[in-house]
Amino acid sequence: MKRITILSLMTLVLAILSAIPAFAEEPSVGDTLINLAYSIDTFYFLISGALVMWMAAGFAMLEAGLVRSKNTVEILTKNVALYSIACIMYMFVGYNIMYGGGPNGFIPGFSFWLGADNTVDAVLKSGGDTYYSSMADFFFQVVFVATAMSIVSGAVAERMKLWSFLIFAVVLTGFIYPVEGYWKWGGGFLDSLGFSDFAGSGVVHLCGASAALAGVLLLGARKGKYEGGKVKAIPGSNLPLATLGTFILWLGWFGFNGGSELMISNIEESNAVSMVFVNTNMAAAGGMVAALILSQLWFGKADLTMALNGALAGLVAITAEPLTPTPMVATLVGVIGGLLVVPSIVLIDKARIDDPVGAISVHGVVGIWGLIAVAFTNPEGSLIAQLTGIGVIFAWVFGTSFIVWLIIKAVMGIRVSEEEELEGVDIGECGLEAYPEFTNK
Amino acid sequence: MKRITILSLMTLVLAILSAIPAFAEEPSVGDTLINLAYSIDTFYFLISGALVMWMAAGFAMLEAGLVRSKNTVEILTKNVALYSIACIMYMFVGYNIMYGGGPNGFIPGFSFWLGADNTVDAVLKSGGDTYYSSMADFFFQVVFVATAMSIVSGAVAERMKLWSFLIFAVVLTGFIYPVEGYWKWGGGFLDSLGFSDFAGSGVVHLCGASAALAGVLLLGARKGKYEGGKVKAIPGSNLPLATLGTFILWLGWFGFNGGSELMISNIEESNAVSMVFVNTNMAAAGGMVAALILSQLWFGKADLTMALNGALAGLVAITAEPLTPTPMVATLVGVIGGLLVVPSIVLIDKARIDDPVGAISVHGVVGIWGLIAVAFTNPEGSLIAQLTGIGVIFAWVFGTSFIVWLIIKAVMGIRVSEEEELEGVDIGECGLEAYPEFTNK
Amino acid sequence: MKRITILSLMTLVLAILSAIPAFAEEPSVGDTLINLAYSIDTFYFLISGALVMWMAAGFAMLEAGLVRSKNTVEILTKNVALYSIACIMYMFVGYNIMYGGGPNGFIPGFSFWLGADNTVDAVLKSGGDTYYSSMADFFFQVVFVATAMSIVSGAVAERMKLWSFLIFAVVLTGFIYPVEGYWKWGGGFLDSLGFSDFAGSGVVHLCGASAALAGVLLLGARKGKYEGGKVKAIPGSNLPLATLGTFILWLGWFGFNGGSELMISNIEESNAVSMVFVNTNMAAAGGMVAALILSQLWFGKADLTMALNGALAGLVAITAEPLTPTPMVATLVGVIGGLLVVPSIVLIDKARIDDPVGAISVHGVVGIWGLIAVAFTNPEGSLIAQLTGIGVIFAWVFGTSFIVWLIIKAVMGIRVSEEEELEGVDIGECGLEAYPEFTNK
Repeated sequence: MKRITILSLMTLVLAILSAIPAFAEEPSVGDTLINLAYSIDTFYFLISGALVMWMAAGFAMLEAGLVRSKNTVEILTKNVALYSIACIMYMFVGYNIMYGGGPNGFIPGFSFWLGADNTVDAVLKSGGDTYYSSMADFFFQVVFVATAMSIVSGAVAERMKLWSFLIFAVVLTGFIYPVEGYWKWGGGFLDSLGFSDFAGSGVVHLCGASAALAGVLLLGARKGKYEGGKVKAIPGSNLPLATLGTFILWLGWFGFNGGSELMISNIEESNAVSMVFVNTNMAAAGGMVAALILSQLWFGKADLTMALNGALAGLVAITAEPLTPTPMVATLVGVIGGLLVVPSIVLIDKARIDDPVGAISVHGVVGIWGLIAVAFTNPEGSLIAQLTGIGVIFAWVFGTSFIVWLIIKAVMGIRVSEEEELEGVDIGECGLEAYPEFTNK
Repeated sequence: MKRITILSLMTLVLAILSAIPAFAEEPSVGDTLINLAYSIDTFYFLISGALVMWMAAGFAMLEAGLVRSKNTVEILTKNVALYSIACIMYMFVGYNIMYGGGPNGFIPGFSFWLGADNTVDAVLKSGGDTYYSSMADFFFQVVFVATAMSIVSGAVAERMKLWSFLIFAVVLTGFIYPVEGYWKWGGGFLDSLGFSDFAGSGVVHLCGASAALAGVLLLGARKGKYEGGKVKAIPGSNLPLATLGTFILWLGWFGFNGGSELMISNIEESNAVSMVFVNTNMAAAGGMVAALILSQLWFGKADLTMALNGALAGLVAITAEPLTPTPMVATLVGVIGGLLVVPSIVLIDKARIDDPVGAISVHGVVGIWGLIAVAFTNPEGSLIAQLTGIGVIFAWVFGTSFIVWLIIKAVMGIRVSEEEELEGVDIGECGLEAYPEFTNK
Repeated sequence: MKRITILSLMTLVLAILSAIPAFAEEPSVGDTLINLAYSIDTFYFLISGALVMWMAAGFAMLEAGLVRSKNTVEILTKNVALYSIACIMYMFVGYNIMYGGGPNGFIPGFSFWLGADNTVDAVLKSGGDTYYSSMADFFFQVVFVATAMSIVSGAVAERMKLWSFLIFAVVLTGFIYPVEGYWKWGGGFLDSLGFSDFAGSGVVHLCGASAALAGVLLLGARKGKYEGGKVKAIPGSNLPLATLGTFILWLGWFGFNGGSELMISNIEESNAVSMVFVNTNMAAAGGMVAALILSQLWFGKADLTMALNGALAGLVAITAEPLTPTPMVATLVGVIGGLLVVPSIVLIDKARIDDPVGAISVHGVVGIWGLIAVAFTNPEGSLIAQLTGIGVIFAWVFGTSFIVWLIIKAVMGIRVSEEEELEGVDIGECGLEAYPEFTNK
């Protein structure tokens, strides 16, 4: 999300109007115009945020559909809990870390709890430069950190201890994410460097994937996945659920990318938000079709899970720059994302990195593609800056995550016992079965 | 939802402008400002209402996930049908009862069908005091009555006759709810008393729980639930569905609470709606985490169904006052809700009141907590007034519901036969199975 | 969707203001008002479009719930893919065909790719007659063509080849739909004739049903469906999913009909959109209750699938004219839709036209009812014009679809092999099972 100070139309209108005696009194036409624009932008933020919150349900359904039934309750619990923890930690300290530091910095600010919302006086005095509620901004931001954390849960599914995961969630959402978020969106050094990341292919998706990779490497593969030198496919237990999750994510992404334009209250910004909606949709469509065709040609089957990952890949790919490409180019960015995600999933599996839902490929590999694409689709994009940003985000998130996972592993362990894994983590961790009346096994 | 007459900015602007000759003609700038504000508030109402309508799907999924597979079709049918009946009855007579009475009254007004929408002339003449479409108001209100009724279906699940339930739905949505709704939101005596209930912890949630309790007491427990002096746990058949339902409700609640501010078209109201969004989200997060930790400590397991009920408890608790607390306090209100709901479910079960989904605890017990909390979180709240409101709503809804259930029981019975209950109500009532190809039992 | 040029309030305000010297400069109050109105209408379009996009998930869930588990992955794949194909084809050529032709014409225009979005200058010069982003318009339109195509997939479920279906999707969404769309909404001859179709009972729903009918006739019934001279009921495998799909469609329809008013930025239009929301909701409620009662009386059971189809029938019926009826009349339009859909499903089944989800009845038969109802509910409606429109749309879509299906059948076949059908198309077409751990069969 870009964060620029806009000397808006409103400011100028106010200046003109206050020169006319009849309008100098309060509430003037100029003040009312500021009020209306403020309410449009705030409402746009809130609805966008609600759509991104909905993505938490999308990840939960996607992951629950792609794991085995005996591990479903636990992945659901993780998803609901990580969203809640993200909200609490980001309110407690994360938001202040991310947006409390100085310009062009490396060390973020640090303080606790949320401040007050903008007062009416302050907004009017700003002449409309303070153009939406700061609470709406918090709401929009907090659902992004939850998205980053949602990416992790899928990759470590079916064998990680519930509470170890949740403790990691505390650290990632309260500290690791906010710090790199500050570097870019908080106005830190990555931003000054010219690194471009509209809605977070890097800040959110690569971040989640890097943390996931660190966890997966320390955790090891699921039992039976790579036994006897062969890669065993472990099919998801409920594909309608996975499809629903993908549709939810697709819908939520209109808020994710659409809201990241950060303003809609004039013609230019309305056009921009509309272009973002169209491009987001086209990239998803392109990624989906590309992955479906590729899976048909490669495997001889129209593999639904690959197609779903293709749609998500299109969405991740366009997230770094959904505004400047034409819809045709956006489709192409998505197509390449879809073509990348299929071999990436296959290769990562061959490398014996066990990622049950393909999260590292979708959000990491394709996130990197999205960030690189900016250099070609945005005239102001710089390949050097993009590569720097990719390197910095990966190094920071992977490095700190690896250390945190290591500490958690040493203190309480991160992997369930072999018996629990065999039986399914649902009974062991949650004491419940997801489908107590159905399972054959 | 507060219903205050706002002498809005618009009114003053219009007054100033009409003093200037050039603006005295139509359509003037003042009129256009009124038009724009009217459209923003109306759109905000419609989107909020659509989100609340979506809660009907949330209740349907939550309840379908928490009952056994043999009783799933019937609970789905009840949920779709009760929403439809609520819409028809509220249009037919309920809305007029709720908003047709005089100020400070006990006896509501009475008339049939909806009136016409606001005309443009009337709005402009009002100077913007009539600031949104009356049809949008109806739409926002009608989805609330459906919410109240949705609460009932879960508590009486797995043993109540379908058509007996639907006849009760006719009475609750057409009469019982609108009357107590009038007492508070229609400007009746509870409102004059200083009883405070922002979005309906009492008017909606306690109402639904009170009607449910009356039904459950007359209906008795499910066969086998308390046999042999022991409380037998009857696990839900599809927990991903229950989790989806909770996420849907969480999303819909942004419309439920956020829309209940009733205005967004100026800076102050935009700030208020944003604060409501943030607090609603924080309370849910707090309730979820609290219930999860409590269930881990108490039962030794991270119980997903308790965690889901914790999130809903947080939402119900903050509904009575989501505006005045800081986000930190809102989280705390939710935490207490989450800590209350777990022992409440256990105790109500021990008392042999059989509530398959925990609706009486979530919406009743925690609804009462939410109403009491107002006395502490809102400087204008009065504990006496809150307790009076709780007593009046419970007495009215429980009393009338008990009588209506009794009459229905006498005339056509409310409980299915023992054979039908054993076989599952789906075959008996609906002639269909929810999962004809799956069930083992 | 009506497409009228509105000499809006904005235009007049601008005229008045530019006569005052102080306001003649840029950015003037008049320009700012145009900016605000433009952003409100654009935002309203985008949110409406997002809701309609969500309907794609609704169709996917509805259809996945109503087929057998062995054919579930393939229907999900079709649904995700057809949405993606619709987006690409409509961007590639469909949108230009639909809106590129002259007034009152029969032959549409023809060009490729999307043009640029409105510039700020052009909008201001138009004085506000160009009142929302053309990209937002594309976004709103593209999700409609996907809806039309979604209708087809359900009717041909469980026996049609995946890729044959997707090739048909290319033709329907790129050519067949845009041509008849042009005739009505693009200002072609059906529009000049006085044919009235607010949001597409004909252009979208009858279109989808006509294409589906052509496919079903060429495809034949599922094996075992009509063997031994009897009609065998083949129950859906997952009714919670079908119910979820219906709720999603119900929610999405607020965007479908509500957005088709095409403007919300003044009092009159806000009232209109609100009325459309209320009437859409009431018709669905009426259709649902009517179908439920009818199924109880006719079959002796409260048939959930009939009730869901009743709700959808109400929605389809009101789509041709959701603005002019009172809510009471709208309920009645829905009730008649619900009463029609039940016998229609039974009769079409008796006629051995095998439509697994009832799509031809819901969208075709009831779509026709909705179009005819306009003659009675809209004072400007003409029965002759409505019947002409019905005939033209059906003849065009059925005729061209029949030819396209025939060609596809000749070239690559449209039906899977008997063995594949018996085994389930999921394994044969997609190489995956929807519920690998559950099925008993």
